[in-house]
Amino acid sequence: MKYYESMIRTVPDFPKPGILFKDITPMTGDAKALAEVTEDLYQTFRAYGATHIVGIESRGFIFGSLLAYRLGAGFVPVRKPGKLPAETISASYDLEYGQNTLHIHKDALAEGSRVLIIDDLLATGGTLRAACDLVQALDASVAGIGVVIELSFLRGREKLTGFPFISLIQYSGE
Amino acid sequence: MKYYESMIRTVPDFPKPGILFKDITPMTGDAKALAEVTEDLYQTFRAYGATHIVGIESRGFIFGSLLAYRLGAGFVPVRKPGKLPAETISASYDLEYGQNTLHIHKDALAEGSRVLIIDDLLATGGTLRAACDLVQALDASVAGIGVVIELSFLRGREKLTGFPFISLIQYSGE
Repeated sequence: MKYYESMIRTVPDFPKPGILFKDITPMTGDAKALAEVTEDLYQTFRAYGATHIVGIESRGFIFGSLLAYRLGAGFVPVRKPGKLPAETISASYDLEYGQNTLHIHKDALAEGSRVLIIDDLLATGGTLRAACDLVQALDASVAGIGVVIELSFLRGREKLTGFPFISLIQYSGE
Repeated sequence: MKYYESMIRTVPDFPKPGILFKDITPMTGDAKALAEVTEDLYQTFRAYGATHIVGIESRGFIFGSLLAYRLGAGFVPVRKPGKLPAETISASYDLEYGQNTLHIHKDALAEGSRVLIIDDLLATGGTLRAACDLVQALDASVAGIGVVIELSFLRGREKLTGFPFISLIQYSGE
């Protein structure tokens, strides 16, 4: 196990009873682990030719901006409704109960940009799928999708078929 | 004017009529500007001896994690209620209408940690003041407070008296 992986902790019953939440804050709070996960993201994605990293609010901002800086790329936030000030496009996706919507600035990505979409965690895949849709709607291409943690038992990868997907750490059971 | 400063745009009437919103997303989306602002944060704060950077949800996550990485420090998020999974402490502050509350994990900072608190923007100062209170409540010390943008006409600095405060860019008028 890598050092940074050992710094992820599992918090039971968050956000609701029965869920084992993977908490990345002890990892980011540790200087060595933060440097190590950033380096691992860089080595994993350096050959993708990305011009931009799209990071998903809020934890995706941490890893997305770090990877953007390390790669010498730009960082573009995808955000919840009402947060981005200029003109946006949006994509909605289904949750267990209800829907979520994500926005991106309409002028955030020039046509032909090559984008890596980064989040901390892949669960059921709805969020990342919506982010792919947003990037493609701006006539940019999804060079790949990356997460630090994949909850592989939730099979979120199946929603991302057709996109290169890499996770640094996989948890195969609840 | 530095290049990264030229990439900040003003969006009128956001989030409500009459407000001129400073939008940092064109700056973060530009690789050169992102590298330049990160380097400027690093040069500004390298001598503060910080062990940890506290970044405030959500845009503070971008600049806070970049500075943490560049300094070789850890990154600790301060978040809105209901977001942090483990045990937290909280601080509330007044808004024009109503109140906001911020949380930090109770075990996020060991006693004696030296902390830089980072956000994208200083407006009236309530958010940053609450973050200072949280850091001190954990028996860590506030080595300094840094923001990319200071709306100096709102006089938010007055809420931060006693703490070293630095902004990279100041706007003196609405």
